[in-house]
Amino acid sequence: MKKLIEEFNLNLDLAIEAHDLLRGATRREVEGVKEEITQGEFIKTTTITILNEKGARSLGRPKGSYITIESPPLKFNDPYVKAEIIQAMEKAMQLLTADLLTSRDSVLLVGLGNWRATADSLGPKFIEYSPITRHYHQHAPDALVKGMRPTSGIAPGVLGITGVETFEVVKGVVEKIKPALLVVVDALAAASVERIGTTIQMSNTGIQPGGGIGNQRQALTVEGLGVPVIAVGCPTIVNAALIADQAVRSFCSRMSAEYDNNASIEAVKEILSFFGGGLTVTPKEIDDIIENTSRIIALGVGKSLFPGIEEEQLVLYAT
Amino acid sequence: MKKLIEEFNLNLDLAIEAHDLLRGATRREVEGVKEEITQGEFIKTTTITILNEKGARSLGRPKGSYITIESPPLKFNDPYVKAEIIQAMEKAMQLLTADLLTSRDSVLLVGLGNWRATADSLGPKFIEYSPITRHYHQHAPDALVKGMRPTSGIAPGVLGITGVETFEVVKGVVEKIKPALLVVVDALAAASVERIGTTIQMSNTGIQPGGGIGNQRQALTVEGLGVPVIAVGCPTIVNAALIADQAVRSFCSRMSAEYDNNASIEAVKEILSFFGGGLTVTPKEIDDIIENTSRIIALGVGKSLFPGIEEEQLVLYAT
Amino acid sequence: MKKLIEEFNLNLDLAIEAHDLLRGATRREVEGVKEEITQGEFIKTTTITILNEKGARSLGRPKGSYITIESPPLKFNDPYVKAEIIQAMEKAMQLLTADLLTSRDSVLLVGLGNWRATADSLGPKFIEYSPITRHYHQHAPDALVKGMRPTSGIAPGVLGITGVETFEVVKGVVEKIKPALLVVVDALAAASVERIGTTIQMSNTGIQPGGGIGNQRQALTVEGLGVPVIAVGCPTIVNAALIADQAVRSFCSRMSAEYDNNASIEAVKEILSFFGGGLTVTPKEIDDIIENTSRIIALGVGKSLFPGIEEEQLVLYAT
Amino acid sequence: MKKLIEEFNLNLDLAIEAHDLLRGATRREVEGVKEEITQGEFIKTTTITILNEKGARSLGRPKGSYITIESPPLKFNDPYVKAEIIQAMEKAMQLLTADLLTSRDSVLLVGLGNWRATADSLGPKFIEYSPITRHYHQHAPDALVKGMRPTSGIAPGVLGITGVETFEVVKGVVEKIKPALLVVVDALAAASVERIGTTIQMSNTGIQPGGGIGNQRQALTVEGLGVPVIAVGCPTIVNAALIADQAVRSFCSRMSAEYDNNASIEAVKEILSFFGGGLTVTPKEIDDIIENTSRIIALGVGKSLFPGIEEEQLVLYAT
Repeated sequence: MKKLIEEFNLNLDLAIEAHDLLRGATRREVEGVKEEITQGEFIKTTTITILNEKGARSLGRPKGSYITIESPPLKFNDPYVKAEIIQAMEKAMQLLTADLLTSRDSVLLVGLGNWRATADSLGPKFIEYSPITRHYHQHAPDALVKGMRPTSGIAPGVLGITGVETFEVVKGVVEKIKPALLVVVDALAAASVERIGTTIQMSNTGIQPGGGIGNQRQALTVEGLGVPVIAVGCPTIVNAALIADQAVRSFCSRMSAEYDNNASIEAVKEILSFFGGGLTVTPKEIDDIIENTSRIIALGVGKSLFPGIEEEQLVLYAT
Repeated sequence: MKKLIEEFNLNLDLAIEAHDLLRGATRREVEGVKEEITQGEFIKTTTITILNEKGARSLGRPKGSYITIESPPLKFNDPYVKAEIIQAMEKAMQLLTADLLTSRDSVLLVGLGNWRATADSLGPKFIEYSPITRHYHQHAPDALVKGMRPTSGIAPGVLGITGVETFEVVKGVVEKIKPALLVVVDALAAASVERIGTTIQMSNTGIQPGGGIGNQRQALTVEGLGVPVIAVGCPTIVNAALIADQAVRSFCSRMSAEYDNNASIEAVKEILSFFGGGLTVTPKEIDDIIENTSRIIALGVGKSLFPGIEEEQLVLYAT
Repeated sequence: MKKLIEEFNLNLDLAIEAHDLLRGATRREVEGVKEEITQGEFIKTTTITILNEKGARSLGRPKGSYITIESPPLKFNDPYVKAEIIQAMEKAMQLLTADLLTSRDSVLLVGLGNWRATADSLGPKFIEYSPITRHYHQHAPDALVKGMRPTSGIAPGVLGITGVETFEVVKGVVEKIKPALLVVVDALAAASVERIGTTIQMSNTGIQPGGGIGNQRQALTVEGLGVPVIAVGCPTIVNAALIADQAVRSFCSRMSAEYDNNASIEAVKEILSFFGGGLTVTPKEIDDIIENTSRIIALGVGKSLFPGIEEEQLVLYAT
Repeated sequence: MKKLIEEFNLNLDLAIEAHDLLRGATRREVEGVKEEITQGEFIKTTTITILNEKGARSLGRPKGSYITIESPPLKFNDPYVKAEIIQAMEKAMQLLTADLLTSRDSVLLVGLGNWRATADSLGPKFIEYSPITRHYHQHAPDALVKGMRPTSGIAPGVLGITGVETFEVVKGVVEKIKPALLVVVDALAAASVERIGTTIQMSNTGIQPGGGIGNQRQALTVEGLGVPVIAVGCPTIVNAALIADQAVRSFCSRMSAEYDNNASIEAVKEILSFFGGGLTVTPKEIDDIIENTSRIIALGVGKSLFPGIEEEQLVLYAT
């Protein structure tokens, strides 16, 4: 799969998938990488920590912690499971922010993606459902529940903003409002369709728009922005090339035929080249999945940033 | 591919693809089916006529004419090609409506699909861009250009309308406003990604929501509605199962390995079963493709229904 | 005010305002009309019953009950007041539907108005937030909580539907799906700005699109549709002519000058005639008001139709 | 009216109205202010130049040129009048930008306002219909027609961006992308309903969000942003207090009664105080007016920035 990923210039946005791929069937340890698993009632939480540069090179992403919350009912907004997911998100956020944040610090929420393409609209929807309070602090402090920190929200890929790189907009706003922390939400690409709408990844390493390790100075990272960045995402697509290659692989295994990497890549190219690798696989009910996951992520982030404030209260501060 | 299509309960919405599949590599004639091709400057038009029940059974769709306009630049809204496409649509509409319509007859436009899932929003967007005049006829006839017929438009899957079958809504409205003709626009599923945003199919056989030959009495057809129905569509997705199977097939051919239908189906099922076959492949730029194709189709249909009225004028009657 | 209302062809959508206007400063009784007031903690409920034709003529609306729930915090979606409002709506609905409905009867929700004009989008927003279950009954009954009745929803003025009269669409759908009851929600015009976003009116007399007593056979009424209709509304605008006339009246009273009805009407005409009386007054925060009131009304109607089902559950069945 | 404007803290966004108000019935000259009128076939253009500080103080707005294009059919998107309006906008833009801009300079388009309140969505709609090319310059220069300058677009009040002051967002983006010019479009408040959808104002003085002369260092002005700013606007509302006062005034004149400024202000306050002066008057068809005027303004600005490029071409670069 590694060669295919390079050939089609794909991203594996989930650290857990990159780790699994690297470990292979033997499940061998990767040097510089630690993995811990917690099993809850309806959810499973996996924390992958990249400890050093060696681990970073192996996994193709920066040093730091990547927490994955997996729960198939996530995509249904099941009220019983929702509470457990939100609690897990709060715990993950505590771990990821550690002592980055006092209770009065200002936080900037960033929702990446394009609201006009359903599968890419997770970030803008997250902003829509998130509690935004900075303008109350400035203009109507009495309307705030005691202890609410200032939060602001931008969705730089919306209607809204075009012809301007996401990094430029975010950097511009960060320099003006000087938040203590960024929480950036984006739709992710997974390697397997089972992950669509069922997995949340949270990390303290920021986001490279376009994925990969790239130039950290032009990324939504502490290096690029001068402010720590928590990245939160949920897979909404799988690249079609991965699906096609997986089918070839499974076919070969069923037929006890030899799987040939190059031939599979050429086959996939033949089928998909018309759109230059930019073909994505999504379920038909993607609109419901986006609706449900963006609401849960907004609540999980909201409860983390405003500890002790009730869900019903938080919803009132959504835009 | 036929077995895969059955196994996954897929639709091949394009008659031209069903015909090609049936004719196979040998390009043999199919009894009861006639095909004619016209090559234009930027476009190619193929008219498939299903002449009798035998042809209908072979192609798995009702008797009638299916006109396919193919033009790769369609999805870019290229102004030079647009004019040729609109002209071809006007000609196709003349052929399909024949003497169904006098110049004063009322027409009901129907845009199928769900506007909240980008790839399925072609129909609602078509309604948004179409000239709607029936209310002017009733309330402000002076605001109409001379000779404009009454048109009305519904998008039954919009916000809008839920828990009610499309057929029920359309039948209900048809019985009230008694149009002489329906033009129904829907996003289609193709068998090949090259067709996404590059092909328009027009037919005089109506639409079976969900595809296939089914029960014509519960379909958007003259049998179901009592009014002739012109169906217009453009592919916006390919089912992921077809993509995966095509990759297996191409891989086998490259490796000179035997392609086994059952093994491929099992492989595809393994990869995609999580969403029950409901996974679709779309290009990332699907929002632009929908925007461009829905505008061109609205103009093509509009120019057909209001011959002699300028494009600039028609746009003024859009909702 | 009566003359002004006739001159500008205005609607007083609220029975309580029509009643107050008629009773005047003297608060005299109106023959054939009964009024009862209940004071709650945060809300006040007024039930006006038009008992006979004489009362109907006096109040310019059909016989039946009009229940008005007044609560200034309604427009803020205050969680403490919300519960009391929802409870009052449930009680009102019981009174209005009486024995019209068994627990299994199907209900059609109708959201009137144009979603593209914020102040007129209460109805479509109501549909968006309402539990819709009819398709589950048909296709996935296991996904329903025990005892949920079938509900469907249409927003005939949306994107959606143009060139077709609201009555025609609703009648067409009613004839197909044959519900036992309609609940129709619409944005109302009040006579005073204090009522915007602070008042809910519920009645068992249906709705005359365009207001007034008119032709009940072409209205969303039991006479027009053959099905009982509960109308629910909330004022979102005041006609500008009323505001202007009120200012003149107040000015005269302050100056101890004579108020002249005709001169005031001529003055108002001079100022507003450019848009033919179609000028409306709304607060700047109308988008928030619509958001909050449509959610509360959807919950109030939802809880009435699905007694015993929790709010969290109902939200899951919203579209 | 001046006292009323102060009392209710209103803006008169149109220089032409402020000038008329100051000149009064006598049409006397205002020192430091020059007015020139050009009559076209369907439009009238008035150029007001504030020559010095004295004129600025009198008119309550900065030195510079304010060009007003008046045409009642503007709001209908009449194709015959549209051409003349676009030409007048091109001419105005030449005058206002003078030598500010070479043909390769980058321009940032800014659409102010809230897309969720129809009457305030002119700016975001303008961005939606404007040609945006900066990303092509960076990533796909071949897709550009020869000679197209780089343009980018932001709508800082969209979904989008909350809890962050407009000035902060715009300043942040300006510092990153360093355009040579800003064109800022906003919905305006007029003093008379005849101006809604019929008047375009263009000026070279920037915009003070909230209106007035205020602190130019926190405004979208050359002083605040370090970049020249062309402001373009169209009235979409009149404050309700102005309407009410005008009715009182007209009433008094009809009755030959004395108009008392204070009594009128008190009367208006009594009627409108519930929403703290934030009540606005708009026509019912405001959605159509916004649609039509935003398209024409986008074309007028587009043709000015890309001289020689056809309308059909420009539309292709809209987002």
